[in-house]
Amino acid sequence: MMLRLDRERLVATMEEQATYGATEDGGLHRLALTEADREIRDWFVARLRAADLTVRVDEFGNVFGRRAGTDPDAAPVLVGSHLDSQPNGGIYDGALGVIAALEFVRTLDDEGIETARPVEIVNWTNEEGSRFQPAMQGSGVWAGSHDIDVEYAKTDDDGVALGAALDEIGYRGDVPAEPATEYDAYLELHVEQGPTLAEAGAAVGVVTGIVGFTWGAVTFRGEADHSGPTPMHHRSDALVAAADLITAVRRIPGTLGERTVGTVGYIDAEPNSINVIPEEVTVTWGFRDPDDETVERAYRRVLAEADHAAAREGADVETEERMRAPAITFPDRTVDAVRRAADARDCRHLDLVSGAGHDATHLASVCDTGMVFAASEGGKSHSPAEFTSWDDCYEAATVLANAALERATGTEK
Amino acid sequence: MMLRLDRERLVATMEEQATYGATEDGGLHRLALTEADREIRDWFVARLRAADLTVRVDEFGNVFGRRAGTDPDAAPVLVGSHLDSQPNGGIYDGALGVIAALEFVRTLDDEGIETARPVEIVNWTNEEGSRFQPAMQGSGVWAGSHDIDVEYAKTDDDGVALGAALDEIGYRGDVPAEPATEYDAYLELHVEQGPTLAEAGAAVGVVTGIVGFTWGAVTFRGEADHSGPTPMHHRSDALVAAADLITAVRRIPGTLGERTVGTVGYIDAEPNSINVIPEEVTVTWGFRDPDDETVERAYRRVLAEADHAAAREGADVETEERMRAPAITFPDRTVDAVRRAADARDCRHLDLVSGAGHDATHLASVCDTGMVFAASEGGKSHSPAEFTSWDDCYEAATVLANAALERATGTEK
Repeated sequence: MMLRLDRERLVATMEEQATYGATEDGGLHRLALTEADREIRDWFVARLRAADLTVRVDEFGNVFGRRAGTDPDAAPVLVGSHLDSQPNGGIYDGALGVIAALEFVRTLDDEGIETARPVEIVNWTNEEGSRFQPAMQGSGVWAGSHDIDVEYAKTDDDGVALGAALDEIGYRGDVPAEPATEYDAYLELHVEQGPTLAEAGAAVGVVTGIVGFTWGAVTFRGEADHSGPTPMHHRSDALVAAADLITAVRRIPGTLGERTVGTVGYIDAEPNSINVIPEEVTVTWGFRDPDDETVERAYRRVLAEADHAAAREGADVETEERMRAPAITFPDRTVDAVRRAADARDCRHLDLVSGAGHDATHLASVCDTGMVFAASEGGKSHSPAEFTSWDDCYEAATVLANAALERATGTEK
Repeated sequence: MMLRLDRERLVATMEEQATYGATEDGGLHRLALTEADREIRDWFVARLRAADLTVRVDEFGNVFGRRAGTDPDAAPVLVGSHLDSQPNGGIYDGALGVIAALEFVRTLDDEGIETARPVEIVNWTNEEGSRFQPAMQGSGVWAGSHDIDVEYAKTDDDGVALGAALDEIGYRGDVPAEPATEYDAYLELHVEQGPTLAEAGAAVGVVTGIVGFTWGAVTFRGEADHSGPTPMHHRSDALVAAADLITAVRRIPGTLGERTVGTVGYIDAEPNSINVIPEEVTVTWGFRDPDDETVERAYRRVLAEADHAAAREGADVETEERMRAPAITFPDRTVDAVRRAADARDCRHLDLVSGAGHDATHLASVCDTGMVFAASEGGKSHSPAEFTSWDDCYEAATVLANAALERATGTEK
């Protein structure tokens, strides 16, 4: 059987959630654990209750709604994503996956379908990592990747601890932030946030895994001098060394792999004055690739380039890798469920590897995990310009629902 | 006659001034019109009064102390510099010139010397341009280069207007900020802030002029995208374009002139997040050369390089020249007075062009102007590592005093 979602209700629910933290330019500013996040959580809990789901909030603020299955011993199927946004982000990133999960259980009710397995839908705390780092924090705690007390103590730019922010919005629940049972599968719909699907004219992506990455920082230390009287040959300019590295990071992916990307997203220069030769400059690196060995090669390359850049300017250099995530390959069992659901639709779809991390990254260590992507027009995300047509939202949500139904119906291991 | 300064008093007075705004690492943090600036101004006014000078504070906060001359019609000789510092700057930059001027009049008193011309000593407001821009602001207003109301309205990073900051520290005086009479000469002692004297083993520099310069800013606008799923060939990375320009600015001087310098001192990147491709990056340029035509060539080169850098990344670019100062050649009359005073000392000295702007830049449009440099060890300045030996301070202060005495004694035009 093919589950048919209510397109109008999906669109209306997406539009309704987008009113919480709405920006004037049609985007969302709904940072984790802020007042806007409290409001969308209250709204979400009310929707879960209206759908007769059993609501629980764990001690890290992750919100679950559970629909019982007919087999009391069956491991549940978990479906969801996140409702927080980037600063001035878009209305689809995260929210589409949560709303699609809600529409899935609403449609089961509409159709009077009982599933063997329980179905749980989830909104993970702080996927974006904007106000508190790291990203994918709630799912990371729940999956056991992070220590909850360490994460409670993380502070935002105003020095507010995450634990206090959870209390402030009333979402430090009493359920342990960990899986209480085995889970059969975790399925997540997310917008692609890249141009691959849209360029191929595909509405839906069958995600086969998530790229690995290395994140780190390089600090160059030169000498601060007055920019007027200091001859060029007397200089050790930390910003020139950093520029050298930025250029190298732009070039490295082209020497490594078709899918490799590399970015310097952050720079801090001191003393940062028009008239002073920069003394200390920190830049970050980020490299991603579906192949762990390629990520390792990128890491070794950026260290070597940092040394070269420092040597050229006579500067000192320190490098620090801050995070390394291995590439993830989703199991055939979940990928095939998504692909079968996509095959059953009359829309173009293709397999791809996610270039971004998602809550599914952490869930992959808990249970079989799969993802559905919806096409992002122009690949835009983390911006009010983020756009996925309602047609593509609907196709992707339908694929998610049918893949989840397949998993919830069958009770084989 | 050769005026002999009191070396111990010079050193003690330098050490005393360095206690106002002192940093733990032996530097100074005495930004213009802050509480530390108020304290050093109060201290300075007290020293002027103790030396029986007639104190006046003009409406831009420039502080003058006047010692009468014997010829009531004679144009005064003005001697001074500035007491404000860079953020975490050194204890010599500016302060040495003011303290040397004070020691000059103290020594005239010690020796019972009367001069034909009045002697005025001055502390200019906000030479450094750190808290409020531009640099050399007080002397610029006084010399008529800037409109006072425009400068009053300038704000610091906290949005505080300069006029309000002057009121806050009680240094908006009632004397018009302009020359009330003709001046015979302006003489300024400053640390070199470059390595030329120290490398030549010279204590003192006879400054023959000041390099010209161009200052400006380039803003690149690319596209903010998630750094994971956006392929390299889809990117328009404003930071990569900026890196390209920073590299070009490092290279341009070597293609223009032996004395040309070029610097990118400031960079601002948005959104400046490890995981987002930089959308908008602003960098500044500064080029200096003793030859105006070379400065113009540097300016044309940086515009062309900005266009090339933007085109390579498919970014938009805007350039804005914020300041252009022509090179200045000091008149023989003042340069020779400094050189004669240096010749009379048993220390190595040499002629050089100042690579930095000083208050003398603006004064050159008011009256005959000359400068004395004291050697800077390693050329360091704008840093706690700034250092000039007390021997070199004393030699340079003595040269200043004797050049000023020559000008104050003679009353020929």
